Amino acid sequence: MAKPFNRLLLTGAAGNLGKVLRPRIAAWAEIVRVSDVAAMAPAQAGEEVVRCDLSDKAAVNQLMRGVDAVLHFGGISTENTFEAVLRANIQGTYNIYEAAHLHGVRRVVFASSNHAVGFYEQNQFIDAHAPTRPDGMYGLSKVFGEQLGRYYYDRAGIETVCLRIGSSYPEPANRRMMGSWLSYDDLQEALRCSLFTPRVGFTVLFGTSDNPVRWWDNRHASHLGFRPKDSSARFAHLFPDSGAYPSPNDPLMRYVGGTFVNDGPRYGEQ
Amino acid sequence: MAKPFNRLLLTGAAGNLGKVLRPRIAAWAEIVRVSDVAAMAPAQAGEEVVRCDLSDKAAVNQLMRGVDAVLHFGGISTENTFEAVLRANIQGTYNIYEAAHLHGVRRVVFASSNHAVGFYEQNQFIDAHAPTRPDGMYGLSKVFGEQLGRYYYDRAGIETVCLRIGSSYPEPANRRMMGSWLSYDDLQEALRCSLFTPRVGFTVLFGTSDNPVRWWDNRHASHLGFRPKDSSARFAHLFPDSGAYPSPNDPLMRYVGGTFVNDGPRYGEQ
Amino acid sequence: MAKPFNRLLLTGAAGNLGKVLRPRIAAWAEIVRVSDVAAMAPAQAGEEVVRCDLSDKAAVNQLMRGVDAVLHFGGISTENTFEAVLRANIQGTYNIYEAAHLHGVRRVVFASSNHAVGFYEQNQFIDAHAPTRPDGMYGLSKVFGEQLGRYYYDRAGIETVCLRIGSSYPEPANRRMMGSWLSYDDLQEALRCSLFTPRVGFTVLFGTSDNPVRWWDNRHASHLGFRPKDSSARFAHLFPDSGAYPSPNDPLMRYVGGTFVNDGPRYGEQ
Amino acid sequence: MAKPFNRLLLTGAAGNLGKVLRPRIAAWAEIVRVSDVAAMAPAQAGEEVVRCDLSDKAAVNQLMRGVDAVLHFGGISTENTFEAVLRANIQGTYNIYEAAHLHGVRRVVFASSNHAVGFYEQNQFIDAHAPTRPDGMYGLSKVFGEQLGRYYYDRAGIETVCLRIGSSYPEPANRRMMGSWLSYDDLQEALRCSLFTPRVGFTVLFGTSDNPVRWWDNRHASHLGFRPKDSSARFAHLFPDSGAYPSPNDPLMRYVGGTFVNDGPRYGEQ
Amino acid sequence: MAKPFNRLLLTGAAGNLGKVLRPRIAAWAEIVRVSDVAAMAPAQAGEEVVRCDLSDKAAVNQLMRGVDAVLHFGGISTENTFEAVLRANIQGTYNIYEAAHLHGVRRVVFASSNHAVGFYEQNQFIDAHAPTRPDGMYGLSKVFGEQLGRYYYDRAGIETVCLRIGSSYPEPANRRMMGSWLSYDDLQEALRCSLFTPRVGFTVLFGTSDNPVRWWDNRHASHLGFRPKDSSARFAHLFPDSGAYPSPNDPLMRYVGGTFVNDGPRYGEQ
Amino acid sequence: MAKPFNRLLLTGAAGNLGKVLRPRIAAWAEIVRVSDVAAMAPAQAGEEVVRCDLSDKAAVNQLMRGVDAVLHFGGISTENTFEAVLRANIQGTYNIYEAAHLHGVRRVVFASSNHAVGFYEQNQFIDAHAPTRPDGMYGLSKVFGEQLGRYYYDRAGIETVCLRIGSSYPEPANRRMMGSWLSYDDLQEALRCSLFTPRVGFTVLFGTSDNPVRWWDNRHASHLGFRPKDSSARFAHLFPDSGAYPSPNDPLMRYVGGTFVNDGPRYGEQ
Repeated sequence: MAKPFNRLLLTGAAGNLGKVLRPRIAAWAEIVRVSDVAAMAPAQAGEEVVRCDLSDKAAVNQLMRGVDAVLHFGGISTENTFEAVLRANIQGTYNIYEAAHLHGVRRVVFASSNHAVGFYEQNQFIDAHAPTRPDGMYGLSKVFGEQLGRYYYDRAGIETVCLRIGSSYPEPANRRMMGSWLSYDDLQEALRCSLFTPRVGFTVLFGTSDNPVRWWDNRHASHLGFRPKDSSARFAHLFPDSGAYPSPNDPLMRYVGGTFVNDGPRYGEQ
Repeated sequence: MAKPFNRLLLTGAAGNLGKVLRPRIAAWAEIVRVSDVAAMAPAQAGEEVVRCDLSDKAAVNQLMRGVDAVLHFGGISTENTFEAVLRANIQGTYNIYEAAHLHGVRRVVFASSNHAVGFYEQNQFIDAHAPTRPDGMYGLSKVFGEQLGRYYYDRAGIETVCLRIGSSYPEPANRRMMGSWLSYDDLQEALRCSLFTPRVGFTVLFGTSDNPVRWWDNRHASHLGFRPKDSSARFAHLFPDSGAYPSPNDPLMRYVGGTFVNDGPRYGEQ
Repeated sequence: MAKPFNRLLLTGAAGNLGKVLRPRIAAWAEIVRVSDVAAMAPAQAGEEVVRCDLSDKAAVNQLMRGVDAVLHFGGISTENTFEAVLRANIQGTYNIYEAAHLHGVRRVVFASSNHAVGFYEQNQFIDAHAPTRPDGMYGLSKVFGEQLGRYYYDRAGIETVCLRIGSSYPEPANRRMMGSWLSYDDLQEALRCSLFTPRVGFTVLFGTSDNPVRWWDNRHASHLGFRPKDSSARFAHLFPDSGAYPSPNDPLMRYVGGTFVNDGPRYGEQ
Repeated sequence: MAKPFNRLLLTGAAGNLGKVLRPRIAAWAEIVRVSDVAAMAPAQAGEEVVRCDLSDKAAVNQLMRGVDAVLHFGGISTENTFEAVLRANIQGTYNIYEAAHLHGVRRVVFASSNHAVGFYEQNQFIDAHAPTRPDGMYGLSKVFGEQLGRYYYDRAGIETVCLRIGSSYPEPANRRMMGSWLSYDDLQEALRCSLFTPRVGFTVLFGTSDNPVRWWDNRHASHLGFRPKDSSARFAHLFPDSGAYPSPNDPLMRYVGGTFVNDGPRYGEQ
Repeated sequence: MAKPFNRLLLTGAAGNLGKVLRPRIAAWAEIVRVSDVAAMAPAQAGEEVVRCDLSDKAAVNQLMRGVDAVLHFGGISTENTFEAVLRANIQGTYNIYEAAHLHGVRRVVFASSNHAVGFYEQNQFIDAHAPTRPDGMYGLSKVFGEQLGRYYYDRAGIETVCLRIGSSYPEPANRRMMGSWLSYDDLQEALRCSLFTPRVGFTVLFGTSDNPVRWWDNRHASHLGFRPKDSSARFAHLFPDSGAYPSPNDPLMRYVGGTFVNDGPRYGEQ
Repeated sequence: MAKPFNRLLLTGAAGNLGKVLRPRIAAWAEIVRVSDVAAMAPAQAGEEVVRCDLSDKAAVNQLMRGVDAVLHFGGISTENTFEAVLRANIQGTYNIYEAAHLHGVRRVVFASSNHAVGFYEQNQFIDAHAPTRPDGMYGLSKVFGEQLGRYYYDRAGIETVCLRIGSSYPEPANRRMMGSWLSYDDLQEALRCSLFTPRVGFTVLFGTSDNPVRWWDNRHASHLGFRPKDSSARFAHLFPDSGAYPSPNDPLMRYVGGTFVNDGPRYGEQ
């Protein structure tokens, strides 16, 4: 049977999640074009490897040729200077959408982040309509990318799912991640739902596994049919119950963005 | 042990769901009175078969004698002319409630339909308080029937559950039904909860199985205790993932009412 | 200067409000076609007088020829038997919309009623998204008319403003009307806003003057620019402060629909 | 491994739930100090037994010495006279919070009750932000205790979880409890989550098992990670389906507080 | 013409607002019974002066004889010790309601306070359904009084308006009061609306004049018809625009309760 | 009397609104520092004129020295290429906030725009919590600027009012502006409220006069005390009532952003 897409583009293929995803998405397209500004592993069967700086508009236009849908994981994936995220994430994501429009691409799945709402506290429960509260330059760039998706859907009909990824690692690295953890299998499933739901319009999906602790309500993404299978519950032994309550000023256990809220610009460096 | 009711009335017994339900509801009443305007299978033990045109007020009053509760599945069950639904569904359902009031019947379960809200899009998530958006003459008649239930509860204390049935078939017939499917077992359970919850007031219940794709939030029916057991997930192979996105103008995958939105009156025929 | 419309249709022209409106709307169209099932005053300059039973589909189609917009005040305007409202209001309003569609009419202002929500209590504050709670057969027919407007907008693009008229009289006739009163000037202004706002989609507007007591929140009709000028405050002397509290069971001061909630069908008459 | 707390205080240890909890919470602290105004079973290993009248401010201050966290189950646990609840619950809970503040205790889990919202009807679905509607003197005292928690968090940073316990018994004693039942295991788990979630601020948690019938939405406590394991479904045979509908005036099946709504003060006795 | 009530009870008549109100409410009842624990000015024509300690249940029952409606302004009106507010406000208000029930009084207007929600910040906008956040012992007692009103309405049908008085003085004493100010005329009008609206059920009304700065949304009291006539705008010259921003930790300009949030119990005094 | 600020910075002083504002804000500071990338009129008494390219970080830092508060009107004020708004508005506004932080400035009033929500339709009514829907590159840059304000408040305590300016001209230039018009006097008053309300946190204020047609609900800015004095009603004669309804596809009367929704990037130009 033919694969669902002829050509699927994955940006950020040299990043942590990009490397995880390459083998997992192979079944979704005859050709997966993988791209990064950094060096990548060689092309496997059914892959095209294209090195590309996303801040280079012409290069991105070239990258988009023949593409049916995009998994946009490229750009800087952690807190950095404003200038760095401006170039890689803000200009870069604009280039992706503009090229997608030029080439008639109909859907983009955008790797957004919980850091778009990182300044909410861990005892708040929000849904996708809650105003964004970015926790740094990285989070700001993710909010901007989401808004590009909103605009290109309203203006040009390109459908977008913004996947606000929690913490996608083999296992939670600290207690905060007991709430934000997203297993690789569930990440893959979230992408599958985002790509193959017939109509998504502009949808924001919080990306976590079925963890006991929940900060994010996916009601506005119910049409995607995403049902996570994993749970951080099986890692509970890593973070045993403790009566040593954190300080109210400790961001790790106060904000959903964790320590990112302290990682912002080094003010006044010039 | 005695059965819960002495006499339960099922209208629409010759319809698709009526036929499915006859054997499934036998345990709920000493006598199940089944009725339709069309011919029905002969009475089984514990059944009374009464042919009745619901638009005939006197006949409906006769039909209601000795009845404890009503499962109102009668009337036209798909898009039709205004005049047809006016007679069978609007006049017919009025006759049912008026007769129920006359005979002191305390509860009606009304087979409403997702077509009462069929013009919502498939990427919206609504609950029972969302304004109705019927997708045709049939949907309009279902909204009217629901409002009769609202009125007869406020005015006369007759309790009603409006079951907005999604797509109740042996299996989903198209991809839209992956979201709207209601298995026969879950239909039966929804009716059981609707009949036997001690107090329901006026409740609107969306009738779907526990499908991955969800468009309807049953929070306002939480007191019914309806927990669907089936899921359309086991039919996923019937509608494999595809990158051939539907046209934005294709109603089948745009509106929750699917193609019904195109089935309205043939304008201007006189 | 030319008048805004060439031909405006007013149904229900022999009714109380119809008679009030005839001279007030003359400036809005070169020709105002006035219609009723009952006899009307003779045509004035710029008027056409057409007698028409709204339940007669062919006659309504004839009535709609050459019409630019409709003020639909026709039908039964108080509690009556189901059969009477079925014919005059349900069939009648369907005929209006279907004819409007046939003739390319782009806007209908529908004289709905507070009785569409008459079973809310007078200490509740609702907006146009609140589920309807009709207080009788009349109210049910108004809900149905509103839903026809919803459908014909979603399906066919005919824009509708549903004006839920409170109590439009020269002055409040009882204390309840201190909340529901709509002066004739404000009625006229509400219609003007409803007809001439460039885009209204499907809008529900509660029709009251700027009375101190308020039960209805017009936030969802803010785009109409309706600012009532009158207030029931100037009639306060008619209903002096009193410590003789009404019985909790007295509908006049309990429900926004007032005594209508008691005027429903005479149950069991056949 | 060290236990999470050095010293945990349990008040109300001679009550029904207090007795259930003593062995179940032993693992959470090196020392569990159990207290009641009534006689208690002798201290087990790891326990301190302190008899204390909670309405005695000095005694409560003494009781709080060396305590890390509090499970406040003390006071009157059913409907009683105003004067009795004033002393035991209102003065008593104030004494607990004031002593907690004096001794630097950082968290209190307060055994609140569904009777804080007992006047909601069983076909309503509310969350923790819904205005309270106490169903008697007992319920009023629980609302007051919750508000003390709110205040001491806002003013002094003491974190509180108010656990609005449904009906915690070995099994449901009547059909209402099919909705309100909380198994002992789930009670224990709710307390564990309330004590060991790193930050809870001020949280209200409805305490029920995963029963089919639901009246309470725990969305605002999602950060606690409480996932009940039991369900009243396994007791369904105790309350078979019945068509004998309760009277609309029967509080047992009308209000979530059940018969408590009738147990208020004996008016006029002096 | 007869006055609206035969006998109206005003408690707290020796307090600041009580003294303001005595002459202003004389027109509402043939007899105004004024009461306080402190000495009051002698009775004027149409007045009865009764000295009464509200914490004395029997005395309050005596006080309520022959009363038609109550303006309950009695008790402690500023921050104080828990024990003081327990006696005067908690026990006192219970006594009022219990006596009202005993004597068939049908309505109470309860002088509640903005301090029931004093811990909201001045850049939040809340309505009467927002969870209470008392800012001290006084605020806690006001929340309790409101809940008594809720209970006695649900249980016994006594109607209550809780008037959450902002700052009722001749003029604003500080900039915070530019938002919370309630003129005496508007106070009087709020009481008039609260007493004479035919049905109020249980209503919470925020008591401020029509000040430019608004923190409280009275939408849920719209049925009262309260339209304040005064505005703090005319005192703007008292608090000229200043760029000397307050410290974020200065409660006067941070919390709607102002400095009350710092006036709580002197912790640990015993 | 001393003026409220010592030094107030106005960026964009050569723009249309900048020129309007210079004389109007003179009273608010001993020194108004006006700045633009373009040439400005010479300094008046109490003014400093500083030419500055906002995309030059070092220059902006220099510009901010000694400043108490900022009115940030600088940058591109209409639709333009992505690259142009990236430099002037995205980089420029970042520079403003970063410099404000470096220099301890405590408040910024940011000239945002209705184009941040321009893709809402004119029959929707939204408040400041509604998700943004920018209508072009300009609108995207305004969303980004608002999010910078959100971040710098959460992270660094700099207070911001985002004033989403509608259409600030001497009079409405088309019918859409009957809804979006903001008179210069009301603009000035909105800025005054934004600068001098003691605490604003992060507030979004829609900037329109008190026009009859309203699309935006300022409830979340109620604490600012902004009460517009003007109304577009006095320009009603400019846009007489018309029955010539616009096409549903005409953006001018469909979207609140008007024709901006068509002014986006020229797709594919490279």
